Amino acid sequence: MTDTRPTIGLDVGGTKIAGALVAADGTIGARARVPSPAHSTDAIVAQVAEVVAQLRAAADADGVRAVGLACAAFVDGARGHVWSAPNLAWRDIDLRSRVEDVLDLPVVIENDATAAAWGEHLLGAGRGSEDLLLLTLGTGVGSGIVAGGRLLTGAAGVAGEVGHVILDPDGPLCGCGNRGCLEVYASGTALTRQARALVASGEPGSDALRGRCGDDPARLTGVDVTDLAEGGDPASNALLAEVGRRLGHGIAAGCAVLDPGVVVVGGGLSAAGELVLEPARRAFEERRVGRGSYPAPQVVRAVLGDDAGVVGVARLAAAAIDHSDADDRHVPEERPR
Amino acid sequence: MTDTRPTIGLDVGGTKIAGALVAADGTIGARARVPSPAHSTDAIVAQVAEVVAQLRAAADADGVRAVGLACAAFVDGARGHVWSAPNLAWRDIDLRSRVEDVLDLPVVIENDATAAAWGEHLLGAGRGSEDLLLLTLGTGVGSGIVAGGRLLTGAAGVAGEVGHVILDPDGPLCGCGNRGCLEVYASGTALTRQARALVASGEPGSDALRGRCGDDPARLTGVDVTDLAEGGDPASNALLAEVGRRLGHGIAAGCAVLDPGVVVVGGGLSAAGELVLEPARRAFEERRVGRGSYPAPQVVRAVLGDDAGVVGVARLAAAAIDHSDADDRHVPEERPR
Repeated sequence: MTDTRPTIGLDVGGTKIAGALVAADGTIGARARVPSPAHSTDAIVAQVAEVVAQLRAAADADGVRAVGLACAAFVDGARGHVWSAPNLAWRDIDLRSRVEDVLDLPVVIENDATAAAWGEHLLGAGRGSEDLLLLTLGTGVGSGIVAGGRLLTGAAGVAGEVGHVILDPDGPLCGCGNRGCLEVYASGTALTRQARALVASGEPGSDALRGRCGDDPARLTGVDVTDLAEGGDPASNALLAEVGRRLGHGIAAGCAVLDPGVVVVGGGLSAAGELVLEPARRAFEERRVGRGSYPAPQVVRAVLGDDAGVVGVARLAAAAIDHSDADDRHVPEERPR
Repeated sequence: MTDTRPTIGLDVGGTKIAGALVAADGTIGARARVPSPAHSTDAIVAQVAEVVAQLRAAADADGVRAVGLACAAFVDGARGHVWSAPNLAWRDIDLRSRVEDVLDLPVVIENDATAAAWGEHLLGAGRGSEDLLLLTLGTGVGSGIVAGGRLLTGAAGVAGEVGHVILDPDGPLCGCGNRGCLEVYASGTALTRQARALVASGEPGSDALRGRCGDDPARLTGVDVTDLAEGGDPASNALLAEVGRRLGHGIAAGCAVLDPGVVVVGGGLSAAGELVLEPARRAFEERRVGRGSYPAPQVVRAVLGDDAGVVGVARLAAAAIDHSDADDRHVPEERPR
């Protein structure tokens, strides 16, 4: 008999911990959210327990099946281990057992972009493709990979760092210590930085951006740039087109390695839609390996938004305890692929 | 009862078609080799049939199980289709059915580097790791990927083109039409080109190389460079170190995406061993994403040499008709990874 109880999915980031009850079909029910005490592991575990308690209280009498944590961190999901995290006080922590110790539920942990890739694969823009590359354009550029219908997580669990493929070794310094990573060109942070620099430079054409922020570049956001671009401002359009061009180069690198059937672009900056995706597709096609000889992957916008990671990690948690969950399960194929 | 008959593995390249009987345990028996009539598909199919006939004659009375073709081409192995090939007259050919039409045996086709990755995974330098990246430094730079114990082949079958990840967008033109691909820096062809240019330049320090080729740069080969470097020639050593440095940058890009447990370096140029691998490891570590926080993959030399593709594709062919071949088969795991 199939267990129809919901699973709890949590998105654990540097500023907030947001979670939801996720039904067996991926539908989202009750939600909860608390601040993320990024400075302390104990405090984060306590806040995770708090969100879980709120969501269990919201579930019906049958309770919940399991808890999944999608973390903004280098995560070895198979071993329940967090190696490190750029914005969290985590270093070599057996997070899964730490959380299981305070909950009487099975726990699964995964990198947030990897979990989001699984969510988009099962229920979002990647449905129907067994090979998906997800890129999320937010504070950084995250990525997650589905290959042959399974998550690609790697030997240490940290596969899918397409945001740190180097596009230009002489480019700007990235938070990872390298120069010219995709992330320094195509994250929401990068867009904001470039928009502010344009206004500060006083260059002709930046008037609309300057007006928008009241001549205070520090107030500019990515949403401002997208709004102005949608209204026809050429400078804002050019900023988004440049993000798209670099994104296309990153997609070309990822696709040379992975050959996915679909590339899904999510994260806050994906709200700019075709203003970013159209130049991305063009730049990708210019660099696509073997272009013209085999079908190109589609480059599309994510559809699950901020819920992708929550839904994805909830489905991972459900699959970990439920082998009968057929669409989460790898069916042996004829060949070793 | 297990079928213990051998399988035929063929390596189909631009200059030769080489094949062997491969026993169920991967041991190589009789071999055969004919020229590759690269200009004509019909002629290649006929030559494949010729090699297969020679090897069947060499097998014992029980015969052979299947035939695998490892091809220097963009191959969709799952559909038996060749999209295109840089050095062969192949374009949109259903090669598997073409070959099956002239043989009364099951046929499997795969990209040569992908097949080699499978061979090194099962029987070579990748044994014991479920996540492997193979790079072959030859005429070009080929690559093949094993992820989670399965071949990663992609949506169109053409995954694993790490040789065409762009290291420097302003670099030299590559045969693929892009600039600055790993292949233009780290192939055997690239090494020879750079050695010849050094001699032609007449720069101080190139004396040993000049002597080796009798002052005729066109006669220089990669083997010359490796021989001189092993004898202590600083210029030859520097050429190999530069190949290694670029290789390390390519490995960093591939590992950012894939996080393999082991990186296996094969192809003719891998004969230079540590003269290339040591600088490659150093350059890789300088660019490795998240370095210091999780275990680095090992970077090692391939052990199967030119046989990797033949053995790998033979094992793929055997697995395709024999689901009981346990180590070629994916066993469902607890989680969707």
